[in-house]
Amino acid sequence: MKKFIDLNCDLGESFGAYKIGSDEQIMPTITSANIACGAHAGDPHVMDQAVRLAKKYNVSIGAHPGFPDLAGFGRRMMDFSPEEIYRFVVFQIGSLQAFCNIHHVTLRHVKPHGALYNLASRNRKVADAIAQAVYDLDSNLILFGLAGSELINAGRETGLAVASEVFADRTYQLDGSLTPRSATGALIEDVDIAISQVDRMVSEGTVKTIDGNIIDIEADTVCIHGDGSDPIDFVNKLRDRLGTKGVQIVAFGNEI
Amino acid sequence: MKKFIDLNCDLGESFGAYKIGSDEQIMPTITSANIACGAHAGDPHVMDQAVRLAKKYNVSIGAHPGFPDLAGFGRRMMDFSPEEIYRFVVFQIGSLQAFCNIHHVTLRHVKPHGALYNLASRNRKVADAIAQAVYDLDSNLILFGLAGSELINAGRETGLAVASEVFADRTYQLDGSLTPRSATGALIEDVDIAISQVDRMVSEGTVKTIDGNIIDIEADTVCIHGDGSDPIDFVNKLRDRLGTKGVQIVAFGNEI
Amino acid sequence: MKKFIDLNCDLGESFGAYKIGSDEQIMPTITSANIACGAHAGDPHVMDQAVRLAKKYNVSIGAHPGFPDLAGFGRRMMDFSPEEIYRFVVFQIGSLQAFCNIHHVTLRHVKPHGALYNLASRNRKVADAIAQAVYDLDSNLILFGLAGSELINAGRETGLAVASEVFADRTYQLDGSLTPRSATGALIEDVDIAISQVDRMVSEGTVKTIDGNIIDIEADTVCIHGDGSDPIDFVNKLRDRLGTKGVQIVAFGNEI
Amino acid sequence: MKKFIDLNCDLGESFGAYKIGSDEQIMPTITSANIACGAHAGDPHVMDQAVRLAKKYNVSIGAHPGFPDLAGFGRRMMDFSPEEIYRFVVFQIGSLQAFCNIHHVTLRHVKPHGALYNLASRNRKVADAIAQAVYDLDSNLILFGLAGSELINAGRETGLAVASEVFADRTYQLDGSLTPRSATGALIEDVDIAISQVDRMVSEGTVKTIDGNIIDIEADTVCIHGDGSDPIDFVNKLRDRLGTKGVQIVAFGNEI
Repeated sequence: MKKFIDLNCDLGESFGAYKIGSDEQIMPTITSANIACGAHAGDPHVMDQAVRLAKKYNVSIGAHPGFPDLAGFGRRMMDFSPEEIYRFVVFQIGSLQAFCNIHHVTLRHVKPHGALYNLASRNRKVADAIAQAVYDLDSNLILFGLAGSELINAGRETGLAVASEVFADRTYQLDGSLTPRSATGALIEDVDIAISQVDRMVSEGTVKTIDGNIIDIEADTVCIHGDGSDPIDFVNKLRDRLGTKGVQIVAFGNEI
Repeated sequence: MKKFIDLNCDLGESFGAYKIGSDEQIMPTITSANIACGAHAGDPHVMDQAVRLAKKYNVSIGAHPGFPDLAGFGRRMMDFSPEEIYRFVVFQIGSLQAFCNIHHVTLRHVKPHGALYNLASRNRKVADAIAQAVYDLDSNLILFGLAGSELINAGRETGLAVASEVFADRTYQLDGSLTPRSATGALIEDVDIAISQVDRMVSEGTVKTIDGNIIDIEADTVCIHGDGSDPIDFVNKLRDRLGTKGVQIVAFGNEI
Repeated sequence: MKKFIDLNCDLGESFGAYKIGSDEQIMPTITSANIACGAHAGDPHVMDQAVRLAKKYNVSIGAHPGFPDLAGFGRRMMDFSPEEIYRFVVFQIGSLQAFCNIHHVTLRHVKPHGALYNLASRNRKVADAIAQAVYDLDSNLILFGLAGSELINAGRETGLAVASEVFADRTYQLDGSLTPRSATGALIEDVDIAISQVDRMVSEGTVKTIDGNIIDIEADTVCIHGDGSDPIDFVNKLRDRLGTKGVQIVAFGNEI
Repeated sequence: MKKFIDLNCDLGESFGAYKIGSDEQIMPTITSANIACGAHAGDPHVMDQAVRLAKKYNVSIGAHPGFPDLAGFGRRMMDFSPEEIYRFVVFQIGSLQAFCNIHHVTLRHVKPHGALYNLASRNRKVADAIAQAVYDLDSNLILFGLAGSELINAGRETGLAVASEVFADRTYQLDGSLTPRSATGALIEDVDIAISQVDRMVSEGTVKTIDGNIIDIEADTVCIHGDGSDPIDFVNKLRDRLGTKGVQIVAFGNEI
């Protein structure tokens, strides 16, 4: 039985006068922050603020690289070659690393964003490119990816520590992949069911699929959506439930 | 009498399908390359190529941060606060640092670009912001700035090594500043006169101003324009002349 | 005594996943909408929605061109020549005009945004460039500018109809200019005082300056801030007050 | 036998300090100019210059909308919905229309660019979106598309005049589509063969496919590449050959 779980959230996604998310409120409740790097979202000011905030609350810091497409918030597919992806991931991690440096904190992990995350889950060449970029920059970085995905496979083979990410509010299919958002039953809207799904994934290492089967799943880190209806309430309830099971909430890699 | 001089050039300023400069030709002729960081020019692919090329020819690598204004190529003034400038300089240096890391080369210096360079020459708050960003990221970096400028002053006071930059093809005013481009006689179009100006600056530490006076000037590094009419020819002639004077052409900071 | 007043508001300033303003709520309460044109803010989707919404509520449509600087929301000065400003204003008006065309509504006015508005208020060459761009595209367009500004002068001389804009929540100086935001007393935070200021400007054609003098002011249209603390409440109170004075709220140019 | 042919070329694709193409040289040799609209390439200054130049040489003006992806020059696929494409095509045509207005010339046609052109050739929903955008803005505009493509079909059904575009330097497959660039024999590098291919397409309405069959093809306009090795020489030779056959070179829609 697993005794540790990490709670991660995408942050630092505002841009100039445009505000998205509630970084100040969510930061104290999570253990790992994935900070946008100025490509799909974020800018130097926002990145600086997000790193400060993570440092203040002792939250583990990760880079959150995405497609360079602010107008699409990195959510739409773009046709980049693996070489191009390698290079823009290097660029994006480097720029966030600089803010970690000036604030004397350590960059701990990398989690791709949006369409890049999805692409890397199923496309091994893209997954390899991302894993290699992370490894080449700092082989001590942890790669976050969808549990059971090609990104996790690529990270392991490249020699990186990997953290398998699970979702509270998404249903899973028999092969361990997420039910596509376009399909019926893709989303779990009932908070209690969502929390129970996480509980089972963490406590038993299994998940009940959308068609009622029980499959194995690795759960190292849970994705917390900062833009949900009441994310703080959700995290508090999740923390309570996991606490009753003796699960410790701690940044992946910081377990004692 | 000075025995060393550095030749620096702005490079890596292409963007996507758009090509500017002749990096492949100029790189073997210089000792320091100022590589654009994806803001006023450059992109992850171009930065990667420029770092590879500098490594190939053993050219010292510098970051060349500029105003984030691709449409204006960083040449027009924009009203940023010193705090904003500090943050975008951190961002830009960080992204280039990442490419140095993956290619196992050392980032050696920073030279601001265009309107930012000019602003930092005369505005001490901006100069301080840039110097502090450089220092906070890596106190071993060398700051390149206009000879006699506020940027050089700021760099020194911050505790950075500084390299005073001089221009072959620009005339100087009595106070040591460049004659504004809009004024008559601002540009030196005769190659021989340009080379003689550099010779005098390096050999004697003086320059004849536009109104005929002789003033002192520090010359650590000469700006080579990659987009001139025949930059390779110019560099070769300059190298010949300085060679006859026993001046060694070597990257600033690498003198033996 | 003036019997008509226009209420204008900046709208359509969201961008991709980023939302700003409450267009749906504010649109029914105003008479003129200044719609961003994809440069300082807005995108094709947002522009399309804003034009639809204005048409739905029979609100007069204007283009709201600004500096092409999404990261700065068009609020910081950039050094463009009058010729460059002429061309980007043409570009921006043209793109909004296209959305008016497909929705079979008429583009009625142009009001520059942010730093461009401020620059055009005091710089006659810039004001002339904007007025000329508007005139060259459609000499029937109305130019909105700060009451008493160079932009109003330029519009008049170019042959355009002009609408003098006044502010409810800003104090005025003796020369009719706004008290700079950085100065004490620049903002009028008390809603009643703000409404009384508009009432006086509309009813009597005067305003009490920050130092207690009474000066003349032309008031054709009042700027409503969609991002204020409770803009709907403010507009309702303003409408009530002006109603008691027999002032009709109607788009500038549509008075009967 | 066809007696008229149009020669079109993509122009106005420079951006800020970045120059692409040789608009000044190519403009006098063609009959239709497809001018970029500031999305995949071009900016307000470049658009203005391109329209001036087309007017000077009496060349028919078209809008050349593309994916809003300057970094990729509109050449890589992006996942836009037909509704999104409709709106950005409206936006882009509108901005070019404005430059036509101020220069008192008529916008005559629209030709999509790069990845958008290719997508519209095979995807009917995208083709319909583009055709509808063009029609809604001005039903007198001519839609340029790949001969035999869905874009041509969509344009016809929408009620637009259409011009079927053929390529001199690309081979065709049995179904009338272009041999993909990645395949052997996709490009025709011999100028004489390229010119003979156009001659046959125009004179006989047929093309010999890559596997040696003769198929029918409609040829209204020939794509001239401004960035070829010697485009002026190519156009001159093509004009000579077609002249000997009595084919008149004239903008599509201007035949007498």
